[in-house]
Amino acid sequence: MYFYKEDLINMIVPDKPDPSAAKVLQEALGGQFGEMRTMMQYSFQSANFRGKAKQYRDLIRGVFLEELSHVELVQSTINQLLNDAGGNMPGNSGVDGAPLDDVIKGGANPHHFIMGAKASLPVDAGGNPWTGSYVYDHGNLVANLLNNVVLESTGVLQKSRIYEMSSNKSLRETIAFLMVRDNAHQNAFAKALETLGVSWGKIFPVPNYDLNKYPECRKYVDLGYHNAQFNFRLDQTRISEVFQGETPSRNGGQLSVTEPPNGYPVPDMPDMPNEHSPGLSDLNN
Amino acid sequence: MYFYKEDLINMIVPDKPDPSAAKVLQEALGGQFGEMRTMMQYSFQSANFRGKAKQYRDLIRGVFLEELSHVELVQSTINQLLNDAGGNMPGNSGVDGAPLDDVIKGGANPHHFIMGAKASLPVDAGGNPWTGSYVYDHGNLVANLLNNVVLESTGVLQKSRIYEMSSNKSLRETIAFLMVRDNAHQNAFAKALETLGVSWGKIFPVPNYDLNKYPECRKYVDLGYHNAQFNFRLDQTRISEVFQGETPSRNGGQLSVTEPPNGYPVPDMPDMPNEHSPGLSDLNN
Amino acid sequence: MYFYKEDLINMIVPDKPDPSAAKVLQEALGGQFGEMRTMMQYSFQSANFRGKAKQYRDLIRGVFLEELSHVELVQSTINQLLNDAGGNMPGNSGVDGAPLDDVIKGGANPHHFIMGAKASLPVDAGGNPWTGSYVYDHGNLVANLLNNVVLESTGVLQKSRIYEMSSNKSLRETIAFLMVRDNAHQNAFAKALETLGVSWGKIFPVPNYDLNKYPECRKYVDLGYHNAQFNFRLDQTRISEVFQGETPSRNGGQLSVTEPPNGYPVPDMPDMPNEHSPGLSDLNN
Amino acid sequence: MYFYKEDLINMIVPDKPDPSAAKVLQEALGGQFGEMRTMMQYSFQSANFRGKAKQYRDLIRGVFLEELSHVELVQSTINQLLNDAGGNMPGNSGVDGAPLDDVIKGGANPHHFIMGAKASLPVDAGGNPWTGSYVYDHGNLVANLLNNVVLESTGVLQKSRIYEMSSNKSLRETIAFLMVRDNAHQNAFAKALETLGVSWGKIFPVPNYDLNKYPECRKYVDLGYHNAQFNFRLDQTRISEVFQGETPSRNGGQLSVTEPPNGYPVPDMPDMPNEHSPGLSDLNN
Amino acid sequence: MYFYKEDLINMIVPDKPDPSAAKVLQEALGGQFGEMRTMMQYSFQSANFRGKAKQYRDLIRGVFLEELSHVELVQSTINQLLNDAGGNMPGNSGVDGAPLDDVIKGGANPHHFIMGAKASLPVDAGGNPWTGSYVYDHGNLVANLLNNVVLESTGVLQKSRIYEMSSNKSLRETIAFLMVRDNAHQNAFAKALETLGVSWGKIFPVPNYDLNKYPECRKYVDLGYHNAQFNFRLDQTRISEVFQGETPSRNGGQLSVTEPPNGYPVPDMPDMPNEHSPGLSDLNN
Amino acid sequence: MYFYKEDLINMIVPDKPDPSAAKVLQEALGGQFGEMRTMMQYSFQSANFRGKAKQYRDLIRGVFLEELSHVELVQSTINQLLNDAGGNMPGNSGVDGAPLDDVIKGGANPHHFIMGAKASLPVDAGGNPWTGSYVYDHGNLVANLLNNVVLESTGVLQKSRIYEMSSNKSLRETIAFLMVRDNAHQNAFAKALETLGVSWGKIFPVPNYDLNKYPECRKYVDLGYHNAQFNFRLDQTRISEVFQGETPSRNGGQLSVTEPPNGYPVPDMPDMPNEHSPGLSDLNN
Repeated sequence: MYFYKEDLINMIVPDKPDPSAAKVLQEALGGQFGEMRTMMQYSFQSANFRGKAKQYRDLIRGVFLEELSHVELVQSTINQLLNDAGGNMPGNSGVDGAPLDDVIKGGANPHHFIMGAKASLPVDAGGNPWTGSYVYDHGNLVANLLNNVVLESTGVLQKSRIYEMSSNKSLRETIAFLMVRDNAHQNAFAKALETLGVSWGKIFPVPNYDLNKYPECRKYVDLGYHNAQFNFRLDQTRISEVFQGETPSRNGGQLSVTEPPNGYPVPDMPDMPNEHSPGLSDLNN
Repeated sequence: MYFYKEDLINMIVPDKPDPSAAKVLQEALGGQFGEMRTMMQYSFQSANFRGKAKQYRDLIRGVFLEELSHVELVQSTINQLLNDAGGNMPGNSGVDGAPLDDVIKGGANPHHFIMGAKASLPVDAGGNPWTGSYVYDHGNLVANLLNNVVLESTGVLQKSRIYEMSSNKSLRETIAFLMVRDNAHQNAFAKALETLGVSWGKIFPVPNYDLNKYPECRKYVDLGYHNAQFNFRLDQTRISEVFQGETPSRNGGQLSVTEPPNGYPVPDMPDMPNEHSPGLSDLNN
Repeated sequence: MYFYKEDLINMIVPDKPDPSAAKVLQEALGGQFGEMRTMMQYSFQSANFRGKAKQYRDLIRGVFLEELSHVELVQSTINQLLNDAGGNMPGNSGVDGAPLDDVIKGGANPHHFIMGAKASLPVDAGGNPWTGSYVYDHGNLVANLLNNVVLESTGVLQKSRIYEMSSNKSLRETIAFLMVRDNAHQNAFAKALETLGVSWGKIFPVPNYDLNKYPECRKYVDLGYHNAQFNFRLDQTRISEVFQGETPSRNGGQLSVTEPPNGYPVPDMPDMPNEHSPGLSDLNN
Repeated sequence: MYFYKEDLINMIVPDKPDPSAAKVLQEALGGQFGEMRTMMQYSFQSANFRGKAKQYRDLIRGVFLEELSHVELVQSTINQLLNDAGGNMPGNSGVDGAPLDDVIKGGANPHHFIMGAKASLPVDAGGNPWTGSYVYDHGNLVANLLNNVVLESTGVLQKSRIYEMSSNKSLRETIAFLMVRDNAHQNAFAKALETLGVSWGKIFPVPNYDLNKYPECRKYVDLGYHNAQFNFRLDQTRISEVFQGETPSRNGGQLSVTEPPNGYPVPDMPDMPNEHSPGLSDLNN
Repeated sequence: MYFYKEDLINMIVPDKPDPSAAKVLQEALGGQFGEMRTMMQYSFQSANFRGKAKQYRDLIRGVFLEELSHVELVQSTINQLLNDAGGNMPGNSGVDGAPLDDVIKGGANPHHFIMGAKASLPVDAGGNPWTGSYVYDHGNLVANLLNNVVLESTGVLQKSRIYEMSSNKSLRETIAFLMVRDNAHQNAFAKALETLGVSWGKIFPVPNYDLNKYPECRKYVDLGYHNAQFNFRLDQTRISEVFQGETPSRNGGQLSVTEPPNGYPVPDMPDMPNEHSPGLSDLNN
Repeated sequence: MYFYKEDLINMIVPDKPDPSAAKVLQEALGGQFGEMRTMMQYSFQSANFRGKAKQYRDLIRGVFLEELSHVELVQSTINQLLNDAGGNMPGNSGVDGAPLDDVIKGGANPHHFIMGAKASLPVDAGGNPWTGSYVYDHGNLVANLLNNVVLESTGVLQKSRIYEMSSNKSLRETIAFLMVRDNAHQNAFAKALETLGVSWGKIFPVPNYDLNKYPECRKYVDLGYHNAQFNFRLDQTRISEVFQGETPSRNGGQLSVTEPPNGYPVPDMPDMPNEHSPGLSDLNN
């Protein structure tokens, strides 16, 4: 069973609205290598796990639990990027303008405004809906771990490219945090494969990025987040039987299981100033 | 952030393997009105919530948290139904037979054996992968709640039909538990709409089923599960501002927020007797 | 604008329930070359038509109008095949049996019973949902007409194969009627191409079938349905500027625009003997 | 069977070409809550209807018949928006320019020009093809009606947002007419649920919009279109057993079944000045 | 079995980067009527061919073999259009800018930069992934050939429209070459149908374009490419039993089987100046 | 450019018809880890390759070329399994029976008979069409190679399971040949990663199968096919700069680039004894 505290796993840094940034950031939420994929893939791999070596199940499930809060973090960041896009919506109070006309002509995802009320969607940067066929669970531990390494490596590769698509601080802070955490998860699954016989030599990390050159990443590296596994279990876990010792990363260091971050407040999202907003204003006036 | 205890929200009742039951039960996991849909839909509705009336966000998020354990419960039940399907797999130790030939000719979902190692998949009863286009979040509280009512009502309607597709006890116990909980969630969202002005009169529940005539359901009704909202929050929640007072259900009773069930053990799943199993046996011999 | 009389375009011949027949007949409804495709394709081609040669628009629209009643005819036939499949459903009145267990093990489409209440669905014989990408309208009259010829030819080719998949009379009567009408539509589009310069020589019909060898088809051939275009217009139409003269079919004969058939009653569909049925019984007791 | 008069159900107001408006308006045609969905959903619900309470079947079918002309209206409006987009196409007469280059760079849907010859497509605003999985027909009258209420409510909610995406008069007139008609259909299905026991209290309409503040809508409200059900039947119908009495809408008024509008001419669409156009010019020169 | 020489079937003409041109050119690669479709369709039609009239199998397979190099040609052209899009990527060496921000705001396909490293993808101009449901092989020779005629005709029709979407020389040269070759394939399949009884009269080619008015096409017409079938077989083929005699095209001429072009060098693609590039630079520093 | 000899890369072993075997074997053709995926993935990775280290491009392209003949081999095997399924088709010569009725009730894929004329399709074992979203090419050499290792490993894992689903010799011979070749490709990509720094230790092969225990595999192992890379290039290739030295496989041995097999005849496929067959019989009588 799952329990919850209303804390985001990282802060949302405010910046100006940017529907293009929101559009590309969707890849990190509903894309083939985004957080919905990692979350559901590790859900299936841990629930379908067979046999007695449950330290590996605990490891996979441990990452799964963190991905739940990654989903929430990206949803909240996309919402931040959309909050005031298009300015005031006229709604009932006046319908002469067409405030979203320019937004649409500027290449935004129209569904951010038609389906979502300026809100995140379960789709990728191209607007394609997430699909269950992304989930890899073939019930062979080594094959699953190899796929997980590819998944996390591709995740961070994509994020390093998305970083180049926007200088918006809301996008970059979230991307940077996730790059460091993806790196930790690369290390976790690579380490698990090491306990099963692989010696990774010099190929990690993929891509060959230096986290410290991304300014937003450096503080998380200083906190050791790239070699840490946050523990969200309220009971015992055997993660540290696997996630320990020297990191497989070329950056070196020791792996350790730690408490999660203290948590960050969920931003208050304003009601939209018209009756189409999701809140109650349309019912109480 | 999300926390976890390794407890299932309900017991898995053992019965003989039944790949056909596993196939139809997938509808309750990866179908358009299954637990992955409810889980993701309430995730988006709560993360995208706008405005100050957070008692409604707390309600939606509270149901979301329970759906996470429903996903796990259905995954585990499907696995139970598949565990020994086809008997011993020959693997390396002998390949003369074709133990799954009859299973396939009997109309099983071949992907349960090709992709899953006798394990659950993110697909529906027809084998179609889950898709993000199922998620409804239009950012208008009343529209969202109405859709949630239809979603839960359709969920229980489908389950009452799936019940008629198999007498297997593993399937029926899980289906029965979920029917009672879907009923509680119908009541939750209907009650929320009542606070916003709807008087439901005599139409609830949809369908017009009597939970007490399903033997497996009755014990959950006796426990009051149809009028209870389990609380999985580790901090404060405002759910009970909405989820209180008389139930909108024709069955009557008072709504109340309660502790979750104590939890049930996750079944140990056997290693498959060949090297293709998901565990470690192939690495340690 | 569209008007309606509650008449089916052909009779529904009763026979015993047959979920396998219902499953394969779905191809003629929601398949890539089924009636939903023809209906929507001709809707787009006629609404998007450009230029002054409106006799061709009238021809395409005339076929579109008939396809609307073909959709209804196949829906009704599938329902007929499913009506008593699985026998009495227990519903509230008793839930010990599992009447659909054998139906599912026999390879039925489970969605016919989970989503539909023993009713037709917008999917093909493999359970894949219909998709808008089937529709061909490229805004070039000759290309559109050639595609329409392929579409109708493939439709009748598929139907001649579906005919071999079941001896059920409900299926065969509907398939036979549609084969004759597909033949008429092949002739219509082929004739239109003749007016634009093609001489079809000896290749028609595709496939090289003899309608008279299908017993159910012969009566429709005797009625001249293979060389007739039914007229559903309440105002003037220029169809007969194109649909006239010698048929392009090897079977010979003269093309003519005629009144539609007199119409056949829509079968009364029984309420299901339990509360999950679609009617009112669950509300009035 | 279905009959036709070549009349549009509302006028097409001319304005300048606008490919962005055409792109977003596709949501109202091929989107998850657009006119193709409503049309096909009510087609299946009426053809699959069981039991004797046929006044409800007549109601659902009555709306279905109107949706057929809504599909045609939106197709025609999209065509109007695309008619002269990009200016003259060079075609054979000269190929030095690239008239669509700017159109594409401006964020148009490229398929409007590659597949359609500046014509409507069966896709949504994001370019995703329509899919049969949108159709809801679960064979339980109350569940179906609730889903229909959500469908119409979401339709009008989306349209109120699309309205804000363009000030083009062609788009706005069609959107406004459909908002009023969606409102009428919300009222129809809500009224049907009232006859089955729901008292809607104050929640309708969803969203909480005032039709009179949309200038294009007001004239339709003055005509009473929001409380009218057009009758397209050529035989008897029992719609008025349900669609009568006080409207469930907060706006008040009496529901009544009326004749359809007189009908509006289908605009003549020009041949494109090159050989790729859909008409005959390429064959006759 | 298949053999290979590293030669492109046509040259890549350099021009400046153009992500919009790359986006629309995807239609010719992964679209419903693009080169992946033709390649896979003829693969299935030739491998599934039944019966003794193998001259038709040889014809279809012969075109299949050429389509393999068309796929490669379009992939290479898209890569050329993307090569320097966005300028230098910062990568590790500096992350202050956001070089792709303008590219995204200009309506590029974001997946060209997130998934592909500025590289081609198996999707269409709208970003929809290629799907196996495009493939037509119904095992009836005449139906297959008719569909192939529609496929090639639609391919050239789409290309004549894509030509109008960009004046970029890289795009236009490749499009022009493919238009001439599609014309040859129209002629091939039309001729095959002539041997089976169709007299095409005056309708070919579809569309009614004059290849000589496209400057890039003229040189290929002068080379006779529109009436040639390249032979990629290393053993005997019976193509010329079908592909001979007078062309069915209105342009006249004699069909002949010839050697393929000499081949053109595959352009060297630069490593990207950062560590995310596909080459080795990230491993060797 | 691509060249061809009409030789299959392995023999087709005859056995009795088996539509269930044909259905599951589709996974190896059109499944997410089947031969269409490997073929298209390596096509994109080689065409999109950047930089100077072309020995890796040659390696990937070399495998791509072999996958082309794997596609053809699986297509031909499926056709063999379907050839006489259902016995004689009545066609025009008599339509009283329903020869496919039992085939359908036995759980066959109905599209094998409706779309294919008893022929292979671009779909997986569940009937889902192949999709371009399967293709992985992220333009980072290490990430691509890791994904290729997972792809080949999953391919062989699935095939070892499919082997258990049928004792049909046609299926088993083809599956066995492909298992050995997948093993060779695992070794190829793993070796490439070794040259880039990975030491695989003891984890290969995945799964932990012993090829020699599959009787059909042993002869291919004796031929050294598991450590061989067939060379289909007609010009120079640099494959052997990578594919050389000790195999990464636990089975040991030396990698070597060799000539392809001599080739096996393509089976003659009988015309179907009715007019729906794909050949010419319907035109010549």
